[in-house]
Amino acid sequence: MDHLRTATGAAVRAACRAGEFAGPTPGLAASFVQANLVVLPKDWAFDFLLFCQRNPKPCPLLDVTDPGDPEPKAIAPGADLRTDLPAYRVWRHGELVEEPADVTAHWRDDLVSFLIGCSFTFETALQNAGVPVRHIEEGRNVPMYRTSVRCQPAGRFAGPLVVSMRPLTPGHAVKATQICSRMPRAHGSPVHLGDPAGIGIADLDRPHYGDPATVRPGEVPVFWACGVTPQAALAEARPPFAITHKPGHMFLTDLRDHHLDGE
Amino acid sequence: MDHLRTATGAAVRAACRAGEFAGPTPGLAASFVQANLVVLPKDWAFDFLLFCQRNPKPCPLLDVTDPGDPEPKAIAPGADLRTDLPAYRVWRHGELVEEPADVTAHWRDDLVSFLIGCSFTFETALQNAGVPVRHIEEGRNVPMYRTSVRCQPAGRFAGPLVVSMRPLTPGHAVKATQICSRMPRAHGSPVHLGDPAGIGIADLDRPHYGDPATVRPGEVPVFWACGVTPQAALAEARPPFAITHKPGHMFLTDLRDHHLDGE
Repeated sequence: MDHLRTATGAAVRAACRAGEFAGPTPGLAASFVQANLVVLPKDWAFDFLLFCQRNPKPCPLLDVTDPGDPEPKAIAPGADLRTDLPAYRVWRHGELVEEPADVTAHWRDDLVSFLIGCSFTFETALQNAGVPVRHIEEGRNVPMYRTSVRCQPAGRFAGPLVVSMRPLTPGHAVKATQICSRMPRAHGSPVHLGDPAGIGIADLDRPHYGDPATVRPGEVPVFWACGVTPQAALAEARPPFAITHKPGHMFLTDLRDHHLDGE
Repeated sequence: MDHLRTATGAAVRAACRAGEFAGPTPGLAASFVQANLVVLPKDWAFDFLLFCQRNPKPCPLLDVTDPGDPEPKAIAPGADLRTDLPAYRVWRHGELVEEPADVTAHWRDDLVSFLIGCSFTFETALQNAGVPVRHIEEGRNVPMYRTSVRCQPAGRFAGPLVVSMRPLTPGHAVKATQICSRMPRAHGSPVHLGDPAGIGIADLDRPHYGDPATVRPGEVPVFWACGVTPQAALAEARPPFAITHKPGHMFLTDLRDHHLDGE
């Protein structure tokens, strides 16, 4: 699907909707913003919206739909969240029960969809600024860790802050901090750098999600709040029903990366 | 109450709670962040939280309480929102019915409180950077206008964007834009500058709220999203019950202005 690399966000969505694409989205629709998806019944939506408001670094909201409306009008008018992602996860009482390519059959009039910013946006900005991103160089998924830092709870939602890690030279760590500080809707500035034990990570070589990344001599591990955090909160809160994207299989928006550079 | 000018936010709250202060708060507890207050029943809270999420420039959230909890734990631990403001407004079905100094008698277990950033924060930053603020120089309230720009609606909430205006030289307008861009939780960058008709303002000399401000030759009017916007949305939505601060009579937080400078 090489043509999808230079396609628009709308073209990737159309390929998903037509059943022509069901794979991971890193590198697709270059320069278009990708988003994490969390879908919950209205009865749980206030608690989750409050969780995002209180934890903006792991959960920067790009759009929230009206109950029952599958169209994220602010970031992708005309899109259909039931069909336009390559793969979904369906959860019941905190357990993963299915990974379908379409959730039309699961849709309900009381579902509220949350679209949350994604690190792919700032990784593109880092690379454009000459800051190398190790896991991309190594052709692997980014390493992610559950930390000892607890999110601010909200109603029935609580859980650990999940972080992603990129090894950088000190100079690149400074540059990355400057760049990411301008992108609060793509997780913003790092939450930690240096000693992994400082945020309760025992072993960098054993990430809880994704793949390990090589830390070279003279580099420091730099940690960012991660969009997997809401999935950890969902697993703890165990709502009766939820839908998310399948990790790595994101929603392509109509926003361009530069739209997230600034307020 | 001159001693309150150099007091802490907590000291101003204590004076309000003790019934020793019931006046307007501009200039009080210098360097402490002040906040707008909106209190709504839980049944209306999701719609209003979504309204704030969709309209972050007029409604930058600093804190949202759990239902029934009068303590804004994130920005003023130990505070009591029922007693710690100098003056309140009580609304029924969109009509102002009372302006009490204490809302303890009105409190209910289902009330959710929203604390929203305030322009006082960026005005201090502007003055510190040598950018004069006309209405402060003239000892008047800032001029505010309902515009032809509609907010993004959310559930039962909709309404016009309300803006505040400060006349600046072109050079100061650029400087102010730089400074305010770093403060998204204090309304952020201007939403408009120049021709008032561009956002539907017919007459700068007749603001809808506050006082007119003199625009001198060579100055341009610069417009910021304003914290009165939620009150305009409340008046349109007419929820059965709501509490707000009395305009100009804000909640003093424990945050310092520099906490809002950055992400």
